[in-house]
Amino acid sequence: MSAEEASRGIAGAAQPPACLLRHRDLIDHGLRAATDRLWPKVGRAVAYHFGWCNAEGLPVDGDSGKGIRPALTLLVTEAYGEPAESALSGAVALELLHNFSLIHDDIIDGDTERRHRPTVWATFGTAQAIIAGDALSNLALNLLLEADRPESQVAAAELCRASAAMIEGQAQDLDFEARLDVTLEEGLAMSARKTGALFACAGALGAIFAHHDHAAELAAWRAFGRDLGTAFQAVDDVLGIWGEPQITGKPRANDVRQRKKSLPILHALRPEAPYRRELTDILTSAEDITETDLARVVALLEASGSRAWALDLAERKLQQALAHLADQPLLPGPAEELRQAAEFLVGRQY
Amino acid sequence: MSAEEASRGIAGAAQPPACLLRHRDLIDHGLRAATDRLWPKVGRAVAYHFGWCNAEGLPVDGDSGKGIRPALTLLVTEAYGEPAESALSGAVALELLHNFSLIHDDIIDGDTERRHRPTVWATFGTAQAIIAGDALSNLALNLLLEADRPESQVAAAELCRASAAMIEGQAQDLDFEARLDVTLEEGLAMSARKTGALFACAGALGAIFAHHDHAAELAAWRAFGRDLGTAFQAVDDVLGIWGEPQITGKPRANDVRQRKKSLPILHALRPEAPYRRELTDILTSAEDITETDLARVVALLEASGSRAWALDLAERKLQQALAHLADQPLLPGPAEELRQAAEFLVGRQY
Repeated sequence: MSAEEASRGIAGAAQPPACLLRHRDLIDHGLRAATDRLWPKVGRAVAYHFGWCNAEGLPVDGDSGKGIRPALTLLVTEAYGEPAESALSGAVALELLHNFSLIHDDIIDGDTERRHRPTVWATFGTAQAIIAGDALSNLALNLLLEADRPESQVAAAELCRASAAMIEGQAQDLDFEARLDVTLEEGLAMSARKTGALFACAGALGAIFAHHDHAAELAAWRAFGRDLGTAFQAVDDVLGIWGEPQITGKPRANDVRQRKKSLPILHALRPEAPYRRELTDILTSAEDITETDLARVVALLEASGSRAWALDLAERKLQQALAHLADQPLLPGPAEELRQAAEFLVGRQY
Repeated sequence: MSAEEASRGIAGAAQPPACLLRHRDLIDHGLRAATDRLWPKVGRAVAYHFGWCNAEGLPVDGDSGKGIRPALTLLVTEAYGEPAESALSGAVALELLHNFSLIHDDIIDGDTERRHRPTVWATFGTAQAIIAGDALSNLALNLLLEADRPESQVAAAELCRASAAMIEGQAQDLDFEARLDVTLEEGLAMSARKTGALFACAGALGAIFAHHDHAAELAAWRAFGRDLGTAFQAVDDVLGIWGEPQITGKPRANDVRQRKKSLPILHALRPEAPYRRELTDILTSAEDITETDLARVVALLEASGSRAWALDLAERKLQQALAHLADQPLLPGPAEELRQAAEFLVGRQY
């Protein structure tokens, strides 16, 4: 898929490939069973976050998120010839950890909306949201550590390590907000941590539960995840500026409003970039960003070639991600599905 | 020690027994080595929390907290005849987890002071404090999971399980704030979780690293910790109402100001308690609690016998805690030290 196609994908409306949807019920069931163990009030905040109930706890059929990471884990296990079910606890743990990060990130970023509804902290308060996140992060690891299977122990260590990298990425992201001198290299390293760590973990867990946990195998999946994560983040950052609000579930050009140092913005702020000075003036102004400023920033980013650069980066990183898997003994069918899933993620238009 | 002695202890100023101080340098060194791995800005917030540096990152010799839990872990390992060093990673992990809970609790409770200085969120902001707590919780488990020793894996599962109970206790505590019908039984169950879980873990980790991890052994330490935790919490709650600010590091009668449903307060709100109605009126008033109200609440709690009840509970739970250890093959010297440490904790006047 070319950058042009990816760009069209963002405007269009593609459906996820079947391989990303196939185990949706299995994962959903696993998530509900795991979170059933939470303290009732915490469980309600978590169920609300997953779109299973409203703020009063009444069942609704809401948006649970895309479930990309757990689907990837199950796909990888299948690609090694093992049944998806054998990796279910890993897939569920990973999705719990991902949602811990979303709940805490929404507090940290002050985001009031996610999946087209008020965020957990906006609905239940910051205190409850902190606890809900803490409980999910703990539950993710508990699920693996309490299981009496050797691979669960290996998986727990992998998940914990990925969580460390993700938290580090989040810390770096927060640090960027207060800094004017963030380089593009730092932005890429941050994306590899904040987003890449859990994609890497998705692949590694799939391999671990298929009993392919040698150092070289895990290294291949970590590299795959890191590059796929960067590709995903580049597209996500494009959507954070140019995405349609009814598709992204966030206000238009939300990342610019929040003055996020996202990849296209860092690209347009490089020392040699043509509109660096004007962009810096607007983004560092003490006043709130007006609608006029917003339109001007978006136009300058476009004129700097930052959108095209980010989409091209996504395409290159996608190819690099897939190349890391060349030596893995994957079944042809599931391997092809993995490729489709990765391509879809990077061309996604959610 | 009688309740009267405990009561005097609160007003007086006893020194911790030598056994709680013996390994202070060892633990301090372990904590610094572990937290050195954190992302610099996160590491600074954590070092500030531990009293190792000021808000600008310059070294200071501050209050790192009492380090009771890690000292207990090392004492237990020694009581089984193993060197303290063999349990150091467990002790450090436990103290990291405890401090994760303090940093998040301070946000949740809106507490602006701890250890006689502004709390992490009050100094670095809520976002940074959420991340610092997340990073510590993760680091605690990572420290054990990445170690290539079978006992570290068992310890990680124990720590994760204790963390789940502690988070549940914190959730329950938060829930109490919004409720008027909290029973004394609920308060006791909450204390056993929120405070008891980590004391239980302190004992269990000490046993695990001494290779005494049979189900009955772990059960004994869990029961010990649960009861010791309740005893500790009862004294802590007395201090939260009657403690001297220069000793507690918190404003006078802070728990009453915050309308906490602490044990003495729940005791005085029992259906049959004499001043239940007047106390309820003051504690549920829509207005802020005045200094006059505060003095009146403290006097009513005293007149209800709630202080004496809490100190007596602490004494009973202390004895029950020690009784759980009767069948453990502990060396006489360290076993006596353990008893001293437990008695000190419950008679403590910090």
